[in-house]
Amino acid sequence: MKSVIVTDIERPRAELVEQLEQLGVATVHEAMGRTGLVGTIVAPLQQGKCIAGSAVTVLCWPGDNLMIHAAVEQCRAGDVLVVTTPTPSLAGSFGELFATALAYRGVRGLVTTGGVRDVRELREMGFSVWAAAQNAQGTVKNTAGSVNVPVVVGEVVIRPGDIVIADDDGVLCLAPEDAEAVLEASYARVAKESEARAAYLEGKLSLDHNHLRPKLEELGVSYVPQAELDRA
Amino acid sequence: MKSVIVTDIERPRAELVEQLEQLGVATVHEAMGRTGLVGTIVAPLQQGKCIAGSAVTVLCWPGDNLMIHAAVEQCRAGDVLVVTTPTPSLAGSFGELFATALAYRGVRGLVTTGGVRDVRELREMGFSVWAAAQNAQGTVKNTAGSVNVPVVVGEVVIRPGDIVIADDDGVLCLAPEDAEAVLEASYARVAKESEARAAYLEGKLSLDHNHLRPKLEELGVSYVPQAELDRA
Amino acid sequence: MKSVIVTDIERPRAELVEQLEQLGVATVHEAMGRTGLVGTIVAPLQQGKCIAGSAVTVLCWPGDNLMIHAAVEQCRAGDVLVVTTPTPSLAGSFGELFATALAYRGVRGLVTTGGVRDVRELREMGFSVWAAAQNAQGTVKNTAGSVNVPVVVGEVVIRPGDIVIADDDGVLCLAPEDAEAVLEASYARVAKESEARAAYLEGKLSLDHNHLRPKLEELGVSYVPQAELDRA
Amino acid sequence: MKSVIVTDIERPRAELVEQLEQLGVATVHEAMGRTGLVGTIVAPLQQGKCIAGSAVTVLCWPGDNLMIHAAVEQCRAGDVLVVTTPTPSLAGSFGELFATALAYRGVRGLVTTGGVRDVRELREMGFSVWAAAQNAQGTVKNTAGSVNVPVVVGEVVIRPGDIVIADDDGVLCLAPEDAEAVLEASYARVAKESEARAAYLEGKLSLDHNHLRPKLEELGVSYVPQAELDRA
Amino acid sequence: MKSVIVTDIERPRAELVEQLEQLGVATVHEAMGRTGLVGTIVAPLQQGKCIAGSAVTVLCWPGDNLMIHAAVEQCRAGDVLVVTTPTPSLAGSFGELFATALAYRGVRGLVTTGGVRDVRELREMGFSVWAAAQNAQGTVKNTAGSVNVPVVVGEVVIRPGDIVIADDDGVLCLAPEDAEAVLEASYARVAKESEARAAYLEGKLSLDHNHLRPKLEELGVSYVPQAELDRA
Amino acid sequence: MKSVIVTDIERPRAELVEQLEQLGVATVHEAMGRTGLVGTIVAPLQQGKCIAGSAVTVLCWPGDNLMIHAAVEQCRAGDVLVVTTPTPSLAGSFGELFATALAYRGVRGLVTTGGVRDVRELREMGFSVWAAAQNAQGTVKNTAGSVNVPVVVGEVVIRPGDIVIADDDGVLCLAPEDAEAVLEASYARVAKESEARAAYLEGKLSLDHNHLRPKLEELGVSYVPQAELDRA
Repeated sequence: MKSVIVTDIERPRAELVEQLEQLGVATVHEAMGRTGLVGTIVAPLQQGKCIAGSAVTVLCWPGDNLMIHAAVEQCRAGDVLVVTTPTPSLAGSFGELFATALAYRGVRGLVTTGGVRDVRELREMGFSVWAAAQNAQGTVKNTAGSVNVPVVVGEVVIRPGDIVIADDDGVLCLAPEDAEAVLEASYARVAKESEARAAYLEGKLSLDHNHLRPKLEELGVSYVPQAELDRA
Repeated sequence: MKSVIVTDIERPRAELVEQLEQLGVATVHEAMGRTGLVGTIVAPLQQGKCIAGSAVTVLCWPGDNLMIHAAVEQCRAGDVLVVTTPTPSLAGSFGELFATALAYRGVRGLVTTGGVRDVRELREMGFSVWAAAQNAQGTVKNTAGSVNVPVVVGEVVIRPGDIVIADDDGVLCLAPEDAEAVLEASYARVAKESEARAAYLEGKLSLDHNHLRPKLEELGVSYVPQAELDRA
Repeated sequence: MKSVIVTDIERPRAELVEQLEQLGVATVHEAMGRTGLVGTIVAPLQQGKCIAGSAVTVLCWPGDNLMIHAAVEQCRAGDVLVVTTPTPSLAGSFGELFATALAYRGVRGLVTTGGVRDVRELREMGFSVWAAAQNAQGTVKNTAGSVNVPVVVGEVVIRPGDIVIADDDGVLCLAPEDAEAVLEASYARVAKESEARAAYLEGKLSLDHNHLRPKLEELGVSYVPQAELDRA
Repeated sequence: MKSVIVTDIERPRAELVEQLEQLGVATVHEAMGRTGLVGTIVAPLQQGKCIAGSAVTVLCWPGDNLMIHAAVEQCRAGDVLVVTTPTPSLAGSFGELFATALAYRGVRGLVTTGGVRDVRELREMGFSVWAAAQNAQGTVKNTAGSVNVPVVVGEVVIRPGDIVIADDDGVLCLAPEDAEAVLEASYARVAKESEARAAYLEGKLSLDHNHLRPKLEELGVSYVPQAELDRA
Repeated sequence: MKSVIVTDIERPRAELVEQLEQLGVATVHEAMGRTGLVGTIVAPLQQGKCIAGSAVTVLCWPGDNLMIHAAVEQCRAGDVLVVTTPTPSLAGSFGELFATALAYRGVRGLVTTGGVRDVRELREMGFSVWAAAQNAQGTVKNTAGSVNVPVVVGEVVIRPGDIVIADDDGVLCLAPEDAEAVLEASYARVAKESEARAAYLEGKLSLDHNHLRPKLEELGVSYVPQAELDRA
Repeated sequence: MKSVIVTDIERPRAELVEQLEQLGVATVHEAMGRTGLVGTIVAPLQQGKCIAGSAVTVLCWPGDNLMIHAAVEQCRAGDVLVVTTPTPSLAGSFGELFATALAYRGVRGLVTTGGVRDVRELREMGFSVWAAAQNAQGTVKNTAGSVNVPVVVGEVVIRPGDIVIADDDGVLCLAPEDAEAVLEASYARVAKESEARAAYLEGKLSLDHNHLRPKLEELGVSYVPQAELDRA
């Protein structure tokens, strides 16, 4: 209930984050038991990017970016800035100047439930962004908020120091204490998918590869040639 | 009311489909009397693609892709896979492994009212997709559905074996029995548009080219110089 | 209440428009006191475009593009065509043929609260578009409307002869009589931003550069190390 | 592809329709194997209404209600008017005068993917409406369309003479040839639900009544007291 | 571009407003040539209300209601308060305390593109509201805005002193200088509708009453008995 | 990452919950520092209801209500059932039979990000519901989920045993450990509001009551009579 800037947050080990970045969102999400996804509230500003980093979270007032200014100071190399508001706002609270300051500090990118502006410059800089809108709408610096408190972003809670992974498939949040188990499960999944891919490249059916025919039968799904239907 | 996989569906003649693919969605839609469009429920994953093919339809349960596994076996070269659910779901029921299996079989692309994942891989493979979302959200394989039954996709019904055409302007569905008449009307339209284009490139006005001035007059539309309005 | 085509509208001075085009939407919007933005109702069809021009406005009936035909004649080099409807409609009332006719006349681009089609061709032509949808849906030419009357587009009113600026950050409308003052304010802002950018590139914090620390303190925002929170 | 008014359509037997009206949308939908629902595109204008009737379908142009005028003549006692457009439009194409004319003919109500106006009068008359919007926006009578052709409404196709059932839970479409089987299945469901209701009124759990405990176990769902979790 | 509270605005004559209130939104909208509607951005909080009054307009910052406090002082008996923000916000900037203060001053009601709270109390008081949301979300009082400047509300501009009419069909804005002509046109429309109503109550068809049969023929709409279609 | 049903959860003291219920959502939300609101994702099924209770949470698969069956057993008198899915689904997973079972157990009501059906019966029973949709769409019982795990509902996290308050203004979640402090702050706010109400009922302005005139001046808001503007 208080406005607070939490400093000296704990961060995940860099090598865990780097490994997760190699794996991408879809794989890690599956390895987490299909959890952790922000959902379709944000979209990538660029195609083909994949980043992972440690979350620095910001809770701003709608139409106000004062707390992003405060958050920059809390960011370090390898962080991902996560910005939200208590009630939805698409105002363009983030632009090229913030990106410049964050890039200087080695921040990996931005996830925001609000809008961003200076979109062309952000793309030219290669600063990775997942946002709810491209919107020039300017903001003020009048109202208190918090930095590094847990925030709700779409369907998940992101805590400061959580691992955030983002690519064209969406944005994912993972608690650092789960990272090792998730990495292991991810590698198992990658192996399983490689096997499946190899099989499919030779024409094998996933129905057979995954032993799904008995399932279909058990569920009462029947095969009928169209000609038979037409006669009926 | 039953879960069924319809096999051996009738498909349109390949040369008709190829001709329609050359024409693109907007032209064929006009030639059909401005019908057949799915509407804005799906968006292209790639820019500049245009495909046409024979529909293999799938009705999945929300959050469940079991029936896509069953549908792959029913696909042949020249098909377009069309996936929907009885109630809206943006879960990522389709990804790179399915695309691999479908590409092996010569499938032209995917239209889905749900989500897709492995978006970067799909783009790298060049597998054409029109989808309602980019979404890593995983699905299960627990609930029955149907393959090759008529499905509602946005504003239209797509039946198995219908011709589906998709490009940057949207997704269109055409009954094969109408294809020849529609092709003829399309070519007439192309000719008419070429004539118009040539005229416009020389500065002719569409008001004159289409004889619309009498229409404006009949509807009571009047011309007034701004200076006259300002005096009033 | 009458259907009217207003001719011979007054237009802004070309050199003002060109200077504004160089500045882009976000800067000019800030210089206008954070006003003038259309909002997120339209999106750019292309990346990286920035145009400015004099508005020619069109009020069409939903599903009808008759008045766009009438509007072409009113367009000159340096104009931006602005199309809307009294009640929302995403029908594809604009395509490549209109773009051809407008390009011939030197029109800079299109802003429409409706849909556009022939998207691939529009991109290939390099004709700049901000639209609410990509949609092949054809329209008719049956119902009267107006050209060069004030229209509401998203959050703003656009009057014929207003300056419209559009880029990846959105679409902005500016009254020509404000242009000189806004240009001056824009250049001041650019200078201020250059200074900030230079500072941030050397690692200075915006908190310090903008003297925001006292503001945070005044608002009761406190700094707490995470370890202290964890002990509590 | 042609504009047509289909006359003398076949209608379902009145006693079937009356029985279905008694059962309501949720029950009949379940009895149909969970199909037939329009979805959340329309909402009831009144609370507590339940109607069933034979569909008279109308395909209007957006912003145009000419074909509703044509459709009135095709309506008889026991019909439900179903209005849609090829591309979405929320214009208020229907109001109290149409309701007066339809009430005279014994029409049961209206389902429209567009808007309605004269809402207070419609409520006072007790004319049942399911619509996508309350909207005074007036329409014109300029463009052709069709009456009594198959139309897509949300997630389903409604054909002229189909049975439409509508209540607070939504709008349902049923082919008349399925009505008897569906009625039978509905009564079986009602009986089953009565049994369940009686059990629940005495405190029995649906887990037991539906024998779901083995299912949970099979799916690997485990029971854990909170205290145990807290210790972990 | 400046924050300003405009005082001593001109208001329409009360008897004009009262007459318009009797007519309701749909009739006046038609009499205005189908213009003036805000659209579906706001919904009535109560059923069956119809109010008309003189607009007092407020431009607030998102999540901030400071300017509503300033606006109360500018309100008089017969006014309607109109609240908006430069970028969308559904925060609950208005509640029962404001309604108490406005009711004391004889204000007729509220139209807001934001949210309202204390909904039960507002309904119990009978204070009429058209809003975009019911939302308890509190607001702050930190940022400047304006009172009695022109504002964009949905599809229209509302100027201070404009006549606002609102009922179950929507919200309408009318310039006072047009009121007499619009009243006259409204009464003509009411008379015409009474005549139509009387005809329809005796079973006459609107096709005949409005002489639409030649129009259908001219548009190429043909009548076909279903049996004939089935044979084809 | 595991599917689990947590039993024997801790619940808040009943008298705290009852006091909060008397206060309503808007007051408690303000007393919490304007936090805790779910937002506009759910709407009340009935008007004028206000409930408070202890949360029993359910995480279902989209289109599947198996875990609601499991959750009923975990409910006691004074609970509020909170249902969500990992990815959005408006299917009607809850109806009158569940309400019957929950009413038997003394459950206060339901909050669901999905749909409900049997709406008329739910209203007749007086079982309080806040839902994202009225939707007959049936669900299956095929996929695992969890009961009494933390869930994200709109903008907040709801934990089992949290206090949920819901009325016409929205749905609020409060941690039990904050309840006493929040109650105290709520009563202070009620007192302050009573004072304000009394003042406003006598015509005092909130500008004066809240000492906002200096704030306006400090922010540079100026007063200008309209006549003066018109002269400019």
